[in-house]
Amino acid sequence: MTHQSFDPDVRRVGHLLADAARAAILPFFRGSELATENKLDDAYDPVTVADRAAEVAMRDILQRERPDDGILGEEFGSVAGTSGLTWVLDPIDGTRGFVSGTPTWGVLISLADGNGPFYGIIDQPYIGERFEGAPDKAELVGPLGRKALVTLPARDLSKATVFTTFPEVGEVRDGEGFAAVAKEARLVRYGMDCYAYALVAAGQVDLVIEAGLQAYDIQAPIAVVQAAGGIVTDWKGGPAQDGGRAIAAANAEIHAQALAILQEY
Amino acid sequence: MTHQSFDPDVRRVGHLLADAARAAILPFFRGSELATENKLDDAYDPVTVADRAAEVAMRDILQRERPDDGILGEEFGSVAGTSGLTWVLDPIDGTRGFVSGTPTWGVLISLADGNGPFYGIIDQPYIGERFEGAPDKAELVGPLGRKALVTLPARDLSKATVFTTFPEVGEVRDGEGFAAVAKEARLVRYGMDCYAYALVAAGQVDLVIEAGLQAYDIQAPIAVVQAAGGIVTDWKGGPAQDGGRAIAAANAEIHAQALAILQEY
Repeated sequence: MTHQSFDPDVRRVGHLLADAARAAILPFFRGSELATENKLDDAYDPVTVADRAAEVAMRDILQRERPDDGILGEEFGSVAGTSGLTWVLDPIDGTRGFVSGTPTWGVLISLADGNGPFYGIIDQPYIGERFEGAPDKAELVGPLGRKALVTLPARDLSKATVFTTFPEVGEVRDGEGFAAVAKEARLVRYGMDCYAYALVAAGQVDLVIEAGLQAYDIQAPIAVVQAAGGIVTDWKGGPAQDGGRAIAAANAEIHAQALAILQEY
Repeated sequence: MTHQSFDPDVRRVGHLLADAARAAILPFFRGSELATENKLDDAYDPVTVADRAAEVAMRDILQRERPDDGILGEEFGSVAGTSGLTWVLDPIDGTRGFVSGTPTWGVLISLADGNGPFYGIIDQPYIGERFEGAPDKAELVGPLGRKALVTLPARDLSKATVFTTFPEVGEVRDGEGFAAVAKEARLVRYGMDCYAYALVAAGQVDLVIEAGLQAYDIQAPIAVVQAAGGIVTDWKGGPAQDGGRAIAAANAEIHAQALAILQEY
């Protein structure tokens, strides 16, 4: 997907989807209407009414506006398409943050072709903040207006800021890999979910290191971070779009430095 | 301090201070103007230009509007007063969050008499969110409008959400105390600084447990949480206003349940 071949209709529909998700979710954020249930017996993974309402609203729009595209959503599974393009939707990434009232969950929307995601939105409805990455530009629209998204230039890991959702995600060995990088970094922050990737794109954070991800957790972050100049791979340097272990880096140098440590794990 | 004896001028000045801090800080948030320095050689505690500018702006207002009151500020120390009242200011609580771009730092403003803080503001300038606790009311003004702050009703620790700034603060023994409570809770979240106390006041979170605090870190949270119906003490059930170890609880029942564990540490 090059700048020249990017269809502006993708952007139009991306914003329609994000607007619809905002409207569906916000009445439930910090609201008494909030209902949660456990999706798995052995893990705390609340699914809210808002989560489902937002995905239904987005699927309705796609059925109407982009009937030939496929859909992969967190709540309602896959729909095959005929265009070779697939919308990947996670209506509320960071449900633990959502149910505890923090403003660091997000709506994840992306579009992938055979090579992976090339367009993505990370939207924070409560703040009114939208991070968008496309082949032709990467930008943030938020409380302070509009701003280009550009990742940080190279600096040594000893001066870097690393974000993660550990200790809440991944297996023991995953956590050890993260810790091996974190102990070399200057600053480590926890529990931001998708918002951490948005901050890589915004030039605030050098690295995000995670594990135990689903495809719908990582595809929008890939598109946004890459459009802003960053790199997202698995812990071996291969594609991260199917989930599992992921590292998002502001630039090739810090990516290589972290990968040299992570690939031991 | 009773509802009847609360001077509304305190509220007027509280909002003046918070407005001035917002204006002083926001140009530096996620901005290239951001300059940091290390206050201590052995700990990462960035102090920004914004931090100092905001405290200067607030002190100027107090000198003009409340010349008889004392001041305790993070950046510029103490000024004695003659009124028996002391404004306690922390222009940017959560500087690690601030420098990494998360919207969970806050401006802390409170007013104490001989019995401790009785008026407080936790302000998040980027979101445009102000949590205020006073003897006559507790409310939030934010992106979704105005809302009364009311803490959660009692529920067992096994169903509770616990927030902390561990593992970044406190000593080893402090961390063990926190962990002993956390392992009984349903959901644990990390690294939110003052925003965690705001979420107790907002009825989203049951407990915040921390250590290694300064007086200016905890006095505004005490006022806001207590005005919303919660309780803030040290880990033995005594006053927390001088800093050190603190527990903020949504209600007396969860406070007692957590304290029964913490007082072993």
